[in-house]
Amino acid sequence: MNSYIKKSVLAMQGYTPGEQPTDPRVVKLNTNESPYPPSPAVQKALRSLKVETLRLYPDPLSLALRRKIAELHGGAPENVFVGNGSDETLALCSRAFVEDDGAIGYFEPSYSLYPVLAQIRAVAARPVALGPDFEWAMPADYRANLFFMTTPNAPTGIQYPKSAIRDFCARFPGIVVLDEAYVDFAREHCMDLALSSANVLVLRTLSKSYALAGLRLGYVVGAAPLIEALFKIKDSYNVDRIAQAVALAALSDQAHMRALVERIRSTRRKTTAELGRLGFRVFPSESNFLWVKPPRIPAADLYRRLREQNILVRYFSGPRTHDYLRITIGADEQMQALVSAVQAMTPTG
Amino acid sequence: MNSYIKKSVLAMQGYTPGEQPTDPRVVKLNTNESPYPPSPAVQKALRSLKVETLRLYPDPLSLALRRKIAELHGGAPENVFVGNGSDETLALCSRAFVEDDGAIGYFEPSYSLYPVLAQIRAVAARPVALGPDFEWAMPADYRANLFFMTTPNAPTGIQYPKSAIRDFCARFPGIVVLDEAYVDFAREHCMDLALSSANVLVLRTLSKSYALAGLRLGYVVGAAPLIEALFKIKDSYNVDRIAQAVALAALSDQAHMRALVERIRSTRRKTTAELGRLGFRVFPSESNFLWVKPPRIPAADLYRRLREQNILVRYFSGPRTHDYLRITIGADEQMQALVSAVQAMTPTG
Repeated sequence: MNSYIKKSVLAMQGYTPGEQPTDPRVVKLNTNESPYPPSPAVQKALRSLKVETLRLYPDPLSLALRRKIAELHGGAPENVFVGNGSDETLALCSRAFVEDDGAIGYFEPSYSLYPVLAQIRAVAARPVALGPDFEWAMPADYRANLFFMTTPNAPTGIQYPKSAIRDFCARFPGIVVLDEAYVDFAREHCMDLALSSANVLVLRTLSKSYALAGLRLGYVVGAAPLIEALFKIKDSYNVDRIAQAVALAALSDQAHMRALVERIRSTRRKTTAELGRLGFRVFPSESNFLWVKPPRIPAADLYRRLREQNILVRYFSGPRTHDYLRITIGADEQMQALVSAVQAMTPTG
Repeated sequence: MNSYIKKSVLAMQGYTPGEQPTDPRVVKLNTNESPYPPSPAVQKALRSLKVETLRLYPDPLSLALRRKIAELHGGAPENVFVGNGSDETLALCSRAFVEDDGAIGYFEPSYSLYPVLAQIRAVAARPVALGPDFEWAMPADYRANLFFMTTPNAPTGIQYPKSAIRDFCARFPGIVVLDEAYVDFAREHCMDLALSSANVLVLRTLSKSYALAGLRLGYVVGAAPLIEALFKIKDSYNVDRIAQAVALAALSDQAHMRALVERIRSTRRKTTAELGRLGFRVFPSESNFLWVKPPRIPAADLYRRLREQNILVRYFSGPRTHDYLRITIGADEQMQALVSAVQAMTPTG
């Protein structure tokens, strides 16, 4: 039976998403979701959706949505691609911009989907190790066909210096995909690079700052020929009618998004200080999560013990990451529950 | 700039979906959508959706939905894959079951997406010409790695003999994907082949008989190892929360689907008879559309003249298809408008 399946697919493991427990008692700080609901405009869009129209195919070009995105960031609809979550757009990039004998690059550690995308394409993966403190470390002679860069990075929350990104994009021989999933929580972004370069794409998502991880809506901004290539190979109707309507409503309420971001940032400051007081090393976060190294207790143990108390954070067992935990910034009371639990588990020496 | 884009992508044309006019005056008989709304359960599911939950990722495994589908067709959830429309599942099959030096087969004429999927994968396309009346015509020694078969076929509406399909599946060395998008309008289906063979997948969609083309929900039934391969390479969260909830509601109302199908079949019988009286050759349809050859007027001309009167049908310019039109079965009054317009344009000799 196995001979029916492509060898590279047989050989690979799929991507493992973070756990999605359904028990409402769980303090869920493991997949960087928003603790707050999306804009009231989303509710309104859903309630006013004419269900009868679902019998008709959606706009295959998502034009109304792309116009809105172009309006938000500059550029024209021709500079915007809309996908079924950022995941779809990342996978499309891996198929549009890499020959079969090409290579895909990414930092390590970063989003663990990137090596999986290289495996799915069965092309070479050319990872670049970040510095000892997970800082920018790019060899001067580095080459690949496509480089996936999460910035601010996950799971570290660190934002790379924009000058380093800009210089890298200018000399890199392939396409640089700047995955700015977390950028609304950061100080600066790189949208201007996407709109002024021939080889830079910026990805955004509604999953984090817009509190719509359940919707699956990601978009790409960049040079028109690159966007056109993505359109050629996408599924015919990749974004459904409801998602187009809901996303348009959410993007039209920037004030709600900004307010959510401010609350998260405020909680981030407080939690950073509190975990610091407990002896944690807390990396400077430009995202909606913290990357921390616990004191006097192995990260894996702390993860397990928190889990026993229904507090779910993220632990990555890899060689560069096994001493750390990634903790999503939840609501204030969730973070207080975390801090109290942690305090009981890591008594001061 | 072009050097950034994969050569095979640069060289290809994308798939061209049927037109989606927004003018409500258009009698839209061009993309095989349902003229009737989806189940009231869809409205209910949308209205009762807790918008707050959209902040959370969807179930990446769509388990509740897959359980429901397994219950409908037999088999277990391990035999079911759920995708963002059948299009996603077709594209995943092209990536899971064909080596880079392999070949994808399909009948001609059939769904015009199939050659595009071969182009996207940059693998050989090995089309098989249907017989003079678009009937089954498969060479005894035909080989490929994957065969996409729409049955009942589009654009012809013809269902192949099940014995021919069964024999072909038994001797074909690769995977046979039976795209049963239209099968609810037909006399028989091949789900039993999917559940008893190691190399047969059956695809279904909610776009046609469930009147949910705007939702994008397709599913695949087949042997667990094949389903597992699709899961490995899908986007992490390929079906969003709303689509999972809405699809579950729609699939749970089989009575509504059956009632819609009966109405379409009744209108199909009437329209077949009326166009026959006007001298059209009307192929026996097992689908929600008719494949017709107009009398005394070239198909392209009739298409254009109907269009001028805001009646939109589908015309395919290819060498095998340019003498025919594909006409979706709409509501009775839409078909009456079509028949009246056609009657005025094709005066009896």
